[in-house]
Amino acid sequence: MPTDSSADKTIFERRESEARSYCRGFDTVFTSASGAIMTDAGGRDYIDFLAGCSSLNYGHNDPDMKAALIEHISADGIAHGLDMHTNTKAGFLEAFERHILKPRDMDHRVMFTGPTGANAVEAAMKIARKVTGRSNIVAFTNGFHGVTMGALAATGNGYHRGGAAMPLNGVTRLPYDGYMGEADTAALLETMLNDASSGIDAPAAILLETVQGEGGLTAASPEWVRRVAQIAKDHGALLIVDDIQAGCGRTGTFFSFEEMGVTPDVVTMAKSASGFGLPFAMVLVRPEQDVFGPAEHNGTFRGNTHAFVTARVAIEKFWADKTFQNGLATKAEVLTGALRKLADMVPGAFLKGRGLMQGVDVGSGELAAAICGRAFEKGLIIETSGPDDQVVKVLAPLTTPDATFARGLEILLESAREITASDATIAAE
Amino acid sequence: MPTDSSADKTIFERRESEARSYCRGFDTVFTSASGAIMTDAGGRDYIDFLAGCSSLNYGHNDPDMKAALIEHISADGIAHGLDMHTNTKAGFLEAFERHILKPRDMDHRVMFTGPTGANAVEAAMKIARKVTGRSNIVAFTNGFHGVTMGALAATGNGYHRGGAAMPLNGVTRLPYDGYMGEADTAALLETMLNDASSGIDAPAAILLETVQGEGGLTAASPEWVRRVAQIAKDHGALLIVDDIQAGCGRTGTFFSFEEMGVTPDVVTMAKSASGFGLPFAMVLVRPEQDVFGPAEHNGTFRGNTHAFVTARVAIEKFWADKTFQNGLATKAEVLTGALRKLADMVPGAFLKGRGLMQGVDVGSGELAAAICGRAFEKGLIIETSGPDDQVVKVLAPLTTPDATFARGLEILLESAREITASDATIAAE
Amino acid sequence: MPTDSSADKTIFERRESEARSYCRGFDTVFTSASGAIMTDAGGRDYIDFLAGCSSLNYGHNDPDMKAALIEHISADGIAHGLDMHTNTKAGFLEAFERHILKPRDMDHRVMFTGPTGANAVEAAMKIARKVTGRSNIVAFTNGFHGVTMGALAATGNGYHRGGAAMPLNGVTRLPYDGYMGEADTAALLETMLNDASSGIDAPAAILLETVQGEGGLTAASPEWVRRVAQIAKDHGALLIVDDIQAGCGRTGTFFSFEEMGVTPDVVTMAKSASGFGLPFAMVLVRPEQDVFGPAEHNGTFRGNTHAFVTARVAIEKFWADKTFQNGLATKAEVLTGALRKLADMVPGAFLKGRGLMQGVDVGSGELAAAICGRAFEKGLIIETSGPDDQVVKVLAPLTTPDATFARGLEILLESAREITASDATIAAE
Amino acid sequence: MPTDSSADKTIFERRESEARSYCRGFDTVFTSASGAIMTDAGGRDYIDFLAGCSSLNYGHNDPDMKAALIEHISADGIAHGLDMHTNTKAGFLEAFERHILKPRDMDHRVMFTGPTGANAVEAAMKIARKVTGRSNIVAFTNGFHGVTMGALAATGNGYHRGGAAMPLNGVTRLPYDGYMGEADTAALLETMLNDASSGIDAPAAILLETVQGEGGLTAASPEWVRRVAQIAKDHGALLIVDDIQAGCGRTGTFFSFEEMGVTPDVVTMAKSASGFGLPFAMVLVRPEQDVFGPAEHNGTFRGNTHAFVTARVAIEKFWADKTFQNGLATKAEVLTGALRKLADMVPGAFLKGRGLMQGVDVGSGELAAAICGRAFEKGLIIETSGPDDQVVKVLAPLTTPDATFARGLEILLESAREITASDATIAAE
Repeated sequence: MPTDSSADKTIFERRESEARSYCRGFDTVFTSASGAIMTDAGGRDYIDFLAGCSSLNYGHNDPDMKAALIEHISADGIAHGLDMHTNTKAGFLEAFERHILKPRDMDHRVMFTGPTGANAVEAAMKIARKVTGRSNIVAFTNGFHGVTMGALAATGNGYHRGGAAMPLNGVTRLPYDGYMGEADTAALLETMLNDASSGIDAPAAILLETVQGEGGLTAASPEWVRRVAQIAKDHGALLIVDDIQAGCGRTGTFFSFEEMGVTPDVVTMAKSASGFGLPFAMVLVRPEQDVFGPAEHNGTFRGNTHAFVTARVAIEKFWADKTFQNGLATKAEVLTGALRKLADMVPGAFLKGRGLMQGVDVGSGELAAAICGRAFEKGLIIETSGPDDQVVKVLAPLTTPDATFARGLEILLESAREITASDATIAAE
Repeated sequence: MPTDSSADKTIFERRESEARSYCRGFDTVFTSASGAIMTDAGGRDYIDFLAGCSSLNYGHNDPDMKAALIEHISADGIAHGLDMHTNTKAGFLEAFERHILKPRDMDHRVMFTGPTGANAVEAAMKIARKVTGRSNIVAFTNGFHGVTMGALAATGNGYHRGGAAMPLNGVTRLPYDGYMGEADTAALLETMLNDASSGIDAPAAILLETVQGEGGLTAASPEWVRRVAQIAKDHGALLIVDDIQAGCGRTGTFFSFEEMGVTPDVVTMAKSASGFGLPFAMVLVRPEQDVFGPAEHNGTFRGNTHAFVTARVAIEKFWADKTFQNGLATKAEVLTGALRKLADMVPGAFLKGRGLMQGVDVGSGELAAAICGRAFEKGLIIETSGPDDQVVKVLAPLTTPDATFARGLEILLESAREITASDATIAAE
Repeated sequence: MPTDSSADKTIFERRESEARSYCRGFDTVFTSASGAIMTDAGGRDYIDFLAGCSSLNYGHNDPDMKAALIEHISADGIAHGLDMHTNTKAGFLEAFERHILKPRDMDHRVMFTGPTGANAVEAAMKIARKVTGRSNIVAFTNGFHGVTMGALAATGNGYHRGGAAMPLNGVTRLPYDGYMGEADTAALLETMLNDASSGIDAPAAILLETVQGEGGLTAASPEWVRRVAQIAKDHGALLIVDDIQAGCGRTGTFFSFEEMGVTPDVVTMAKSASGFGLPFAMVLVRPEQDVFGPAEHNGTFRGNTHAFVTARVAIEKFWADKTFQNGLATKAEVLTGALRKLADMVPGAFLKGRGLMQGVDVGSGELAAAICGRAFEKGLIIETSGPDDQVVKVLAPLTTPDATFARGLEILLESAREITASDATIAAE
Repeated sequence: MPTDSSADKTIFERRESEARSYCRGFDTVFTSASGAIMTDAGGRDYIDFLAGCSSLNYGHNDPDMKAALIEHISADGIAHGLDMHTNTKAGFLEAFERHILKPRDMDHRVMFTGPTGANAVEAAMKIARKVTGRSNIVAFTNGFHGVTMGALAATGNGYHRGGAAMPLNGVTRLPYDGYMGEADTAALLETMLNDASSGIDAPAAILLETVQGEGGLTAASPEWVRRVAQIAKDHGALLIVDDIQAGCGRTGTFFSFEEMGVTPDVVTMAKSASGFGLPFAMVLVRPEQDVFGPAEHNGTFRGNTHAFVTARVAIEKFWADKTFQNGLATKAEVLTGALRKLADMVPGAFLKGRGLMQGVDVGSGELAAAICGRAFEKGLIIETSGPDDQVVKVLAPLTTPDATFARGLEILLESAREITASDATIAAE
């Protein structure tokens, strides 16, 4: 049981909006965190397999980033500089160019949007509309792209869409890879775009995640992504890959698409982009599509100078050579192995996702919640995903030490075993 | 002339999006900042009368916030905790309740949205629509509320609206206080809402800034704001005050509306809310209108734990008693005095704004730009505002030491004198 | 009392939608009509001061049109020919060109839309958007332009707007002439369009009625219309005059705007355009703005061949010379005189409208309804108009014989006298 | 060659909008028509296999309707009565109830909308939104429902959609029966509606044609329609069948759906509903969904009294017993036989449609146009349909005498033979 520190929590009940969410499932007060471990007010440690929903791919308070940030602050480095030039921004851009863009032959420019994923998606959608003079954007079933009105139109989740309390426009919804069993959903997209009477207006962009983080860890096949990329090109639409959750190494490579033979026109990044969990978002855009005028899409916190400090360290520490990336493959295999065991405990369960963004569809949200709830009691922070929250999702820090990773998976399996056993007991009674 | 460090700047030209903006007018590379001073790579100091567009009301790197933040980071305090409970968030909420909400008799709850002003505005608009079941939101000429699709519909600026590249829906635009000379614009609003055939659908909310920061520092009269608040109430609409730029002391009190006899249903805050320039945004909402379900409006960086650290210090340091606020009045008088001199130099020029959010409408964007350009050459960072960028706007840190403040105003007046003199010379030739 | 024929009416209760409307106020079953007289199943005659809401400007079953139509049908003339060429259409177009367009120096082309006013408005709005590449259309308070989704966005009436049950987009609403007392509403329009930050997007068109038929018979001044026409021109917007109710002689000239020194880019016509009350609608459009491709705006009943027959007769009979028009002025004076008497009976009442489209604002919908109800009992069909239905509106056939016209006005005055007397009695008690 | 009467046509070039359409393909001036024959100014007869796009299912100038209409007009019957009660309307409603609704166990009410199909569709969509409080309407690929803004959002044709010149909202597009080869498109619909994260908002209605008249004569299977009806019911959505083109006997029964075991909540009717080609439209709606208030959806020409006259005759003459309907089956077989021969002439060609709404997909719009062009030269009026206009479509009057029908089909086959032979010659060279 989590150590209770109820005195501290009354303020949340009294003054924090009902919109608060994760604190309900993980009902304690956290006070510090390091690497893959979070610690609460009672001194209890938790292994973090949520990692800020993939915002902490390098763990909490990475020592090198931490040192760099403290040094920056101590030296009165810029905290907020609007979008003025700073040496800090230059440092990040140089590292990002050298270690990420150039080796991947990407000539993209970097737009620092307001520091949220949704803001990056909004900017990307606006860019596509401005470039093409078209308004329609094709998005997919179970996609998640944020909850501001432009992005929310592209988000599939009905609960979030309902929050708008008015119709959401500008997006056409089509089935994602695998949504219709064996039927070829890319073919449907192509047929509709080729058909002048389909009722699908020529799109400004096709917007997709290669792995649907919130939508249930459904991973598109490389063939499907390539096909969709080609359809976008054929129809004069931009391909936008929303790599906010799947990027920054989460699938095993820096970008989730880089082994698919596809270069998106626009890439949205946020979550782990700062390396340290600081608010930070970017849009990568081809120079010829970099059409915004000065401040046409603006925002007070575009950029975020502290994030430039840690993001530069993250790039230089983890992506200057292949060492880190190679380790991810090994870790992903361990994860797959453990999740297979979990899947074996639940009739009909199956693996979802790819790389270090995997989970198990256990068939029901209740079961998935019960497993995650038990895991939390045992000291593991882990969440569900999917339209019915039926997928137990592992988003451990990519830097989780092997022993901690193993222990976390062990807790997960124990929890699943206990829950399914009690279910079976109940069922058997 | 700013010290050039061109070697550092090529990376921006090569890799930063054309959307970059302030770096064009203030064309140097900044490396550190403290209080009201920014320093560039060449070691040159600039007095900052822009203050991150009012995001740095307490100046750069306030020593107490800085110390607290370094201490937090050093101790492995949470950097990113989604919206879990943390002792850091509790600390902020307690301070905000004690020093801000309670003394002002506000029972509002605090919703931590994605850390941008636009995100707070989007959340506020969604809340109003959800509460009322209506979609229409009344906003005003020259209002600025952000550039994501929902907020952008409420923003008046045509350049930003054009960035959407598609129609913006859900907002009715009406003239702000003073927009029609002597004509009573609140009366027009009331007439239209009372008229069942006016074509203005019953509004979910009336959304306004009490001083239009981007729109040219037009300040609404307390009578007008009270009248509009009453109209909102009469018509079952929420009153949303967007206090993102005018809040946090900028007009002389913590909230810009607090001496107007009005308590908005919803208040949006961002910019200086963290105290340190860190990305941070909040929506204050009455408990009975706190209708979002858990995570219905979500976002990875909602909250921002580092910001909680500095925001708590800011509240406790500046707002625990009246000392700071009293000083603002004095400073505002100094400002008014200086701006009167500036206005006297330009035929037809007049003062705009209120508190430490004042400026001079010099009648043309060219002239305003020339004055600000000359000021930058002389070591002062200052910007324009307004539909034609014709207002020279002073947004100095509220904590600017008197001597620095005087020196900044002196530079401004010198610049205006030189520019108007050369204009006069030209005109006389 | 109307002769009851209840046996006939059960079918309406049983099978006609609740959307039925005029039959509720004029609760009898009509069987024939001629000139300004309608006759019910009980043989009772009613003077018709509603004239199909101005669709029967030449009265019911005009003998010349009737003869021509019977001849056409007898000879197997085309009833329905899609938009193929017919000699009937040619005949109408030639008459319309000769007697209407040429004498008024209008080089407009005629587009036969689906035979409803709303369809003509929809076409006009689409034309303006296609010509300009802009989506925003400025419409005015209390304007009425139809209830299909495009047109309904331009209609002010909240009851009708509510029927959409979803937000209506693409229209900006501004105050009509006189809406703000002495304040200059054209100036507000101009200020907003000149202001790049007003939030009013550059308009595709400005859409107006010169007299607001449904909105309460408010008549715009020629100066205001000219000013708005100039503003439209200055801003690259089309001027669309919706002359559906005010056209075809209703205000004293064929077009309602022709003595204002203004030539609209687009004119919508319907109601009396067929002369006989047959469904028929047209859009007049300048050749250079005639941008629809073949059938781009289509509709099965575009045109209406029977209507071409009667519309040609109407043009040739009434508009080939000035005789008819001259008579309208005399009749309008008679009307004004009678309505002044009516206005004198009600404290605060005042005249509205112009030409043969006049009425009296009696200050309350209840009173107006009571007057019209009493009139119907006495054998006069007359309706109300305005946001609160507070205007008693006379829309008699333009061809009403003098004696009938006098008798109708007499009934109206008697009714008003009785109602106001009883009201006074009640008030005095 | 059509007899040219060029003198008559200059007026069209001079004054009719470029939006005119059918007159381009059938380039002569028609002067009279009777039954299945149209006659031009040169006295040439044409067999009409277009029948006003199915608006003349009972042929031109049916003698009984003609007589009744002349009698009505001669007797000063009401031409225009807004939506007042008339004996004429009662007569129609009684006949429609007796011969159509009652025998089919339909308790629907009849709403007389503005007399265009688009207006009926607009009303139907508004009803569904008002009943459910939802805005989304599901429509299908290649559907055609009119070109006013509400209806156009549901229309698939890109050329027509482009005429809006702004985004069209409120409709989700899904693949029609057979659109994805063997894949089950009803299953896709169901999956998406069952999936809370599909991004398809809960629909107010599902709107479909059972045979897509403009979309290429694709006929849905009864199973598919039943399945979709059940899905609508399961999801609280209304089923709207747009029977504007396929109704009134065109598919072999009065309603196109009546042998499918499905009763739509709402049915839209127009085209042949008047029997005589007069503008007329209706919405049939279940009493419990008849939610419009008086005049909430209004329109000057709602109803159309002349149309009530002919519509009553049509119902009584053709639908009082099964004689007429039985004859349609025989005629449909003849048609199928002829079209099979046509299909055999073109490699890959295949039959489309059902009943007397059949055609042949010849694989290319050019070929289809060439066949129809040749047929017109030979005295047959016939048109194409489909996304690429690749379907030669037969819409002969249902009353076409056998000999005329045979002769029309003979001309069609001759034309196809000549065109394909010359194509083959060219190909062989």
